[in-house]
Amino acid sequence: MDERIQRLAELTVRFGANVQPGQVVAVAAETGHEEIARAVAEQAYAAGAKFVDVYYYDPHVKRSRLRHVRDEDLDYVPPWFGERQIRLGELRGCRISLAGSTTPRLFDDVDPGRAGRDQFPALKESLAVTNARTTNWTIVPAPNVGWANSVHPDLEPAEALERLWADVAHVLRLDEPDPVAAWEERIATLNASAKRLNDRGLEALHFEGPGTDLRIGLLPTSSWLAADFETIDGVRHMPNLPTEEVFTTPDPERTEGVVASTKPLLLPSGATIEGLRVRFEGGRAVDVDAEVGADVARGLVGRDDGAARLGEVALVDKEGRIGKLGTAFRTTLIDENSASHIALGNGYSFVIGDEDVPRMNTSAIHVDFMIGSDDVSVTGVTRDGEQTQVLARGSWQL
Amino acid sequence: MDERIQRLAELTVRFGANVQPGQVVAVAAETGHEEIARAVAEQAYAAGAKFVDVYYYDPHVKRSRLRHVRDEDLDYVPPWFGERQIRLGELRGCRISLAGSTTPRLFDDVDPGRAGRDQFPALKESLAVTNARTTNWTIVPAPNVGWANSVHPDLEPAEALERLWADVAHVLRLDEPDPVAAWEERIATLNASAKRLNDRGLEALHFEGPGTDLRIGLLPTSSWLAADFETIDGVRHMPNLPTEEVFTTPDPERTEGVVASTKPLLLPSGATIEGLRVRFEGGRAVDVDAEVGADVARGLVGRDDGAARLGEVALVDKEGRIGKLGTAFRTTLIDENSASHIALGNGYSFVIGDEDVPRMNTSAIHVDFMIGSDDVSVTGVTRDGEQTQVLARGSWQL
Repeated sequence: MDERIQRLAELTVRFGANVQPGQVVAVAAETGHEEIARAVAEQAYAAGAKFVDVYYYDPHVKRSRLRHVRDEDLDYVPPWFGERQIRLGELRGCRISLAGSTTPRLFDDVDPGRAGRDQFPALKESLAVTNARTTNWTIVPAPNVGWANSVHPDLEPAEALERLWADVAHVLRLDEPDPVAAWEERIATLNASAKRLNDRGLEALHFEGPGTDLRIGLLPTSSWLAADFETIDGVRHMPNLPTEEVFTTPDPERTEGVVASTKPLLLPSGATIEGLRVRFEGGRAVDVDAEVGADVARGLVGRDDGAARLGEVALVDKEGRIGKLGTAFRTTLIDENSASHIALGNGYSFVIGDEDVPRMNTSAIHVDFMIGSDDVSVTGVTRDGEQTQVLARGSWQL
Repeated sequence: MDERIQRLAELTVRFGANVQPGQVVAVAAETGHEEIARAVAEQAYAAGAKFVDVYYYDPHVKRSRLRHVRDEDLDYVPPWFGERQIRLGELRGCRISLAGSTTPRLFDDVDPGRAGRDQFPALKESLAVTNARTTNWTIVPAPNVGWANSVHPDLEPAEALERLWADVAHVLRLDEPDPVAAWEERIATLNASAKRLNDRGLEALHFEGPGTDLRIGLLPTSSWLAADFETIDGVRHMPNLPTEEVFTTPDPERTEGVVASTKPLLLPSGATIEGLRVRFEGGRAVDVDAEVGADVARGLVGRDDGAARLGEVALVDKEGRIGKLGTAFRTTLIDENSASHIALGNGYSFVIGDEDVPRMNTSAIHVDFMIGSDDVSVTGVTRDGEQTQVLARGSWQL
């Protein structure tokens, strides 16, 4: 087996997901991810897993669905998909997701409005399980030819895959002698950034840059966290690898102004959105446009009441490994960690106080899009009413 | 797309499964079946399916499980697999299975006793759903290189696959101008055979041949059926394509004597059994041996109380297309339709009267093995105590 796959699988199972002996492990993969999925399953069983259930989502089957099914059935998902997530929580299981679409252009000729309505394989139940903190979970990239071709369309497939693997190995710190030690060091830095933000006591953020003039209010108890999580049973896990962000859950009623995305966004459903522009009023996205995928974006925002409001705001400085590469990876897992971002949809209840949970945004979706760049500055307003610089030219100012 | 795949998918969806508008369809496939699974999904959506859920079982993941997991966890399956079957029944869904292992030698170096204990992806809940007659379902062959190599080990892979496809197309009657019309004709003949058997009023069968001297008692209400089924809602479906058998559920307490298998058996779990010899006493398999896979066979029989008793007896004459080819297809779906067979494990409740259902054999397994050939004769004993010839030299005698 490719030694890189072996190292990726080890990092995923031992550090990212931190699979515990006796756990049931669910792996979310895609047809075309087989080699990596099998390496992850082997590592998980070697770590003592009781059962590893690899579910291979097949985008070709979804394409048939988008072509044929009645409009009113587009958001139907059989009950067992959600029940599997709920059971994983009950069993204190482990969830591992492989990211990196094998067929990124497969939906190009499908009606984008219909594509926007069908969020499968994303599930609202998985957001609830995340907030319940009952499972240790991680999302990692799974390099493959289809994904590589979309990142490096001018290269031959084999060369594109080599380039993608080199970049992915670098951002995953698999090119370090001890990747886990390298991650521990980086995560200590991210935790320190989160602490400084919390110490400032921010109640709002102001993003300013080309096409962007956006104010996001925070909740009284919003606290900043790096992606270094612990389950309710004390199992530490890294929900994203790579991770370079600190994030919190904002006030869903206090987003005002306009924002322009700074990276393309490939949705879990397979649709692409580029050049997104959104205007918010009273927390709601009231005006949505895009250069590519405007109908998809509008379909997404119209999915349910909470889909038009924010559930997350995340800050990313330029010291991470991803942004420096200057590559649009066309997969949210990596791109969101190259730039500050916001997410439409469900919030994270574990970064706010219990008293604010009823105010948190709720939705069947949680879709990140990237709004940060070296040209976007972020200032904060503290609970004492002071202005404070947060990020300028990609660097922390506090 | 390969035109043969198109024709196979049409026959599967329109005739075998008879997918109804608005149905949820579950497709059980294996990694390596993608092309056929996608064609089936496309046909099912074109026929009006509401959702098609293709589950790809990955035998490589199972291999990791068999190598690593503790003995006591080998028969553990997470609850959502069984719940999915139960939900499919509640939803009056449709089930389509693709047969033909892509990796038939993958478990050759795995401890056979352990392989025998792990029946996944076979599920006891699917047997219950079958008996409830709430879903229309079918099993069809899915030709692939791995399977082809095991059937024609002396040929180059591409040539082996061509040969397998030619044979499969022939036994599926896809080489007829109108395959459905050809099947309607064949099934009328099978239904007539079942009727003649029922008219004779048999209470026992006697199989005699090389290594075989086996008496199987029937239940007072055991009736013979061809594989031409109807759900409780009146949806007709063909549970197996190809099908050449008539079958019933025997008395689990009245099997006596010895029997030798006439074809190799590849279990759903991936293990192989060849040259099986079983001695029955009072309905129980008390002595189990085999040339290949004896430990697997013993593990199977020891799985639960009902695994050592019969749940089915089926008669196959030589007029079908499969036996004439003289090929061991190494997949039960086809081989069982080339020869008379018996099944260890769960019975079919819909071929016996309600009053006999409590006497029917129950088990988590249902495993067919082939005991018929031109050298095996079958005689019957009627409820009036008369002897009657049933099959001789592969031909019906009644």
